[in-house]
Amino acid sequence: MATREVEFWYEFASTYSYPASMRADRLAAQAGVKLVWKPFLLGPIFAEQGWNDSPFNIYPAKGANMWRDLKRICDAEGLKLTLPPHSFPQNALKAARLAIFGERSGWTPEFSRLVYRANFAEQKDISDEKVLRGILAALNLDADAAMAAAETPEIKSRLRRQSEEAKARGIFGAPSFTVGDELFWGNDRLNEALAWAKRG
Amino acid sequence: MATREVEFWYEFASTYSYPASMRADRLAAQAGVKLVWKPFLLGPIFAEQGWNDSPFNIYPAKGANMWRDLKRICDAEGLKLTLPPHSFPQNALKAARLAIFGERSGWTPEFSRLVYRANFAEQKDISDEKVLRGILAALNLDADAAMAAAETPEIKSRLRRQSEEAKARGIFGAPSFTVGDELFWGNDRLNEALAWAKRG
Repeated sequence: MATREVEFWYEFASTYSYPASMRADRLAAQAGVKLVWKPFLLGPIFAEQGWNDSPFNIYPAKGANMWRDLKRICDAEGLKLTLPPHSFPQNALKAARLAIFGERSGWTPEFSRLVYRANFAEQKDISDEKVLRGILAALNLDADAAMAAAETPEIKSRLRRQSEEAKARGIFGAPSFTVGDELFWGNDRLNEALAWAKRG
Repeated sequence: MATREVEFWYEFASTYSYPASMRADRLAAQAGVKLVWKPFLLGPIFAEQGWNDSPFNIYPAKGANMWRDLKRICDAEGLKLTLPPHSFPQNALKAARLAIFGERSGWTPEFSRLVYRANFAEQKDISDEKVLRGILAALNLDADAAMAAAETPEIKSRLRRQSEEAKARGIFGAPSFTVGDELFWGNDRLNEALAWAKRG
């Protein structure tokens, strides 16, 4: 059978999505697998599980281990990680709408990597319009046009539908990877997802 | 610095501790690292987080992914996994006390692997004294003596202290691996823990 694509489900507030976003395109290219970036919102899924905060905040031992584990991963990958974070989890709604809007012109991956860097390496507030405009400008995009487009009913609705699709497909955390109906959860399952796609 | 030992913290009801128990000694030997098996009880730690059941039961999407992920891992490692499980999570108290008792004579690793196999491959009830006696007999041990010793105040207290030590060291799930103060959570972090120990 032909190699299938891997869908990369990510949320801008998600810590492990940061190293995933930095290596996903490279590893997919090495594997010869097409990677499709799927921004979504995890908040509504968490809320349905009774969490109104990140489980890493709700369960302190789990959170302490996550930050330490993330630091080890970032060190191993040569990625800057500034701790403690500016705030966690950050509100990612505007950034996610921009990422959805970017799909049309193909700048979603590059934009998303810059948002993750702003969040986890540069201690910036990614809900701040100025920060988002700076990222758009760094990509030589028309920030005014993008900010306006991201607030249209069409884009809002596309993000909502994508988040509903995530939930319907059994996604409960980020990053997640899907190959057809096969779900892989976590940055540490990326290679497994790519291998699964190559099985066709 | 000299290579340090890795402590392998496991709980018999823990799903990912099954593949971990089957490969931990082999990988540690390949890495030239001493591995110390540390049975403990996760129930009290979960209870303090407000969970009176496994989070894999409390959060169905997480649970569905875990069973699928575990099946992929067991398939890749050539391990039998029989689903759905006989019951989950199983009561592991008696088995954990036996594992503590076995430390004195050194049969804890071998005993533990057989308990995991009974639980996850053979659909047996590991809280059933007959099942545990069968495992002890398979190891050519005196089952009567072991069962009696496992219920002494000394062994009960050692298991309690080991579980309290796990919590004090920041452990919140199983399997976990520690190298001094460095904590690694999950079967998928075993190689990283071994590499950390080799750094000395």
